[in-house]
Amino acid sequence: MLPPIITLTTDYGTNDHLVGAMKGVMLKILPEIQIIDICHHVIACDILDGALTIGMSYKYFPPKTIHVVVVDPGVGTGRRPILVTGDQHFFVAPDNGVLSMVYDTQESFTVRHITSDHYFLRPMSNTFHGRDLFAPVAAWLAKNQQPMSFGEEVSDPVRFTLPKPRSGDGKVKGVVLKVDNFGNLISNISPEMIPQVFIPDGKYRLTVGGKEIPKVLHNYGDGGPNEPFGILGSAGLLEISVNRGSAARILGAQRGVEVLVELL
Amino acid sequence: MLPPIITLTTDYGTNDHLVGAMKGVMLKILPEIQIIDICHHVIACDILDGALTIGMSYKYFPPKTIHVVVVDPGVGTGRRPILVTGDQHFFVAPDNGVLSMVYDTQESFTVRHITSDHYFLRPMSNTFHGRDLFAPVAAWLAKNQQPMSFGEEVSDPVRFTLPKPRSGDGKVKGVVLKVDNFGNLISNISPEMIPQVFIPDGKYRLTVGGKEIPKVLHNYGDGGPNEPFGILGSAGLLEISVNRGSAARILGAQRGVEVLVELL
Amino acid sequence: MLPPIITLTTDYGTNDHLVGAMKGVMLKILPEIQIIDICHHVIACDILDGALTIGMSYKYFPPKTIHVVVVDPGVGTGRRPILVTGDQHFFVAPDNGVLSMVYDTQESFTVRHITSDHYFLRPMSNTFHGRDLFAPVAAWLAKNQQPMSFGEEVSDPVRFTLPKPRSGDGKVKGVVLKVDNFGNLISNISPEMIPQVFIPDGKYRLTVGGKEIPKVLHNYGDGGPNEPFGILGSAGLLEISVNRGSAARILGAQRGVEVLVELL
Repeated sequence: MLPPIITLTTDYGTNDHLVGAMKGVMLKILPEIQIIDICHHVIACDILDGALTIGMSYKYFPPKTIHVVVVDPGVGTGRRPILVTGDQHFFVAPDNGVLSMVYDTQESFTVRHITSDHYFLRPMSNTFHGRDLFAPVAAWLAKNQQPMSFGEEVSDPVRFTLPKPRSGDGKVKGVVLKVDNFGNLISNISPEMIPQVFIPDGKYRLTVGGKEIPKVLHNYGDGGPNEPFGILGSAGLLEISVNRGSAARILGAQRGVEVLVELL
Repeated sequence: MLPPIITLTTDYGTNDHLVGAMKGVMLKILPEIQIIDICHHVIACDILDGALTIGMSYKYFPPKTIHVVVVDPGVGTGRRPILVTGDQHFFVAPDNGVLSMVYDTQESFTVRHITSDHYFLRPMSNTFHGRDLFAPVAAWLAKNQQPMSFGEEVSDPVRFTLPKPRSGDGKVKGVVLKVDNFGNLISNISPEMIPQVFIPDGKYRLTVGGKEIPKVLHNYGDGGPNEPFGILGSAGLLEISVNRGSAARILGAQRGVEVLVELL
Repeated sequence: MLPPIITLTTDYGTNDHLVGAMKGVMLKILPEIQIIDICHHVIACDILDGALTIGMSYKYFPPKTIHVVVVDPGVGTGRRPILVTGDQHFFVAPDNGVLSMVYDTQESFTVRHITSDHYFLRPMSNTFHGRDLFAPVAAWLAKNQQPMSFGEEVSDPVRFTLPKPRSGDGKVKGVVLKVDNFGNLISNISPEMIPQVFIPDGKYRLTVGGKEIPKVLHNYGDGGPNEPFGILGSAGLLEISVNRGSAARILGAQRGVEVLVELL
């Protein structure tokens, strides 16, 4: 028997004991689990950033992995805690849309409202369901492998649409979805929408926040110093990068800035 | 046999190899241990912050967990390294008070001065006992389960009193103990000291650093934008929070600021 | 059978899903591996900082540990991915010099150019070989223990010389190699070069960036407030420190600043 894997994606940061307490709770229930941090620096209370973080990473994990995703500004209110059984993975999260990108990438899935409160930690706080609800539910699920035991199926999970590029008149208008550790600007534009950009001698004009990006390259190392360029990033999306530098800083750009491709 | 669990709480940060070296040392002694990071961002050399971090998290871990706590400005001086056997857990730390909150929450415990230097790494540095002393001692303890083998019992561990609220004249005066990742201000006031605050129609006046906090709420989501409020936090203490915002920033408050409750 | 250990040293930071995706890839290939983070905050694209980070930590791990080191500004270009079999450990990295300090500390080692692309993830990005190449290669190596299966041996790995102190005329001129989390300045000067500094009544003059450091102490705790002093650090090198303070801040010094010892 392989040890069950539980991943954690939260906005708790790493400056205090919060993540440690969650791990303790899980290990007390099932000491042989393997706990993997995906990210604890989701932008605080930012459900879109949380949705992207889990959406871009979950599929790399083995089947049966249990992904705990806690970006939960509504903790303690009526928002439902949910357990999602997807094609190959489980997800435990608040029902606030943070799994939207997961839903978009499953063939089929069921969502259960977690109501079996005998699994919860007692006393239960109103402010830290990561420790008191999501962590024990994930560990018990790892132990019993019975999603049905946690609550009834529901058909109306909260789900939002990720910002989608708009196209028309030979233009594709997207936005920067995320800025990574290197200052790369990850857009929401996929190469299929802008084939000219990725073929030799393709004619196009690319701007980010109104600033022209003269080239699209195949790897970071081909860029000159302080010279922003487009590139097909590892998430399968158009990125704006600078070789050994930060495109975000050099362009003064951040999340939400417009990425415009004019196909000429 | 379950793998022994060792947790780490340090002020080493995560910008360099220090924590990695500690983990390597432990795995070389006992490769099957499960190492769990509680926190490596304790405020540098801040024994109170370290005491709070381990004090608020250790009890969530399974019995027999070994907690390594290294906030150690006196490394290399005469301060004693100690091994504490508590009700259910072990603790390995410098004897500088960083376990004070642990002592406060044990029914009984014994403290040993770690003197069996054949367990230490050689050559031993004067500046990195996390790697050279505490890590190997924790791993050998996980392996031999013999606290007695590490040194003699002592009766005078360094122990400080956590800042306690003062009450009188219908007032309770506390302080902010900690600011978390969301900017929540965690006070040292427990609800039993201020029952009026948590009942409907209770009469009280709450101020933080002289600024009035008009409401106490049951969950973050009920707060208006930029509106600080009191709440019972997950550590069982009064916190000051802002819904989807930072109370620390909005109130210009930090650790040590006075939290005053006047019961009317 | 003990679980194979794979360590990670990268400049990916911890703000997004990159490290999580790498871990998922490895666990999908071999779920029982133990993954240990050495550091993900190597200075972005800084090969020297990466070389120091792995060089100062790898030897503490058990024999057969596989160290994955990804500081890779040339990702997607012609730079070779390599697998190094050292005296006791394996290393998987881009061939850009990031293993220079490892080479310096092995009795013998072989370097292989990783060309067996059936081990790689498909589709393979041009920007994230941590996930698509280095992670799967490390996990497959953990599984098959056959370094030969990954590619042919090469004899010309990229290797740079770490900044070495220059000595002459009774002077030793070094530099600050690294600033740690506490603001300690780690120089490249080892005690054998400056024996006078570490003996009682030794005569010398020590300056950092032109500022005189009056004392060399045996432990941090002996230093006065805001008083920089020299000390033999845990890497076996001369460091400049301040007791409970930051030498970097107090001296306005950073990496690359000159450390001069005049032996009198």
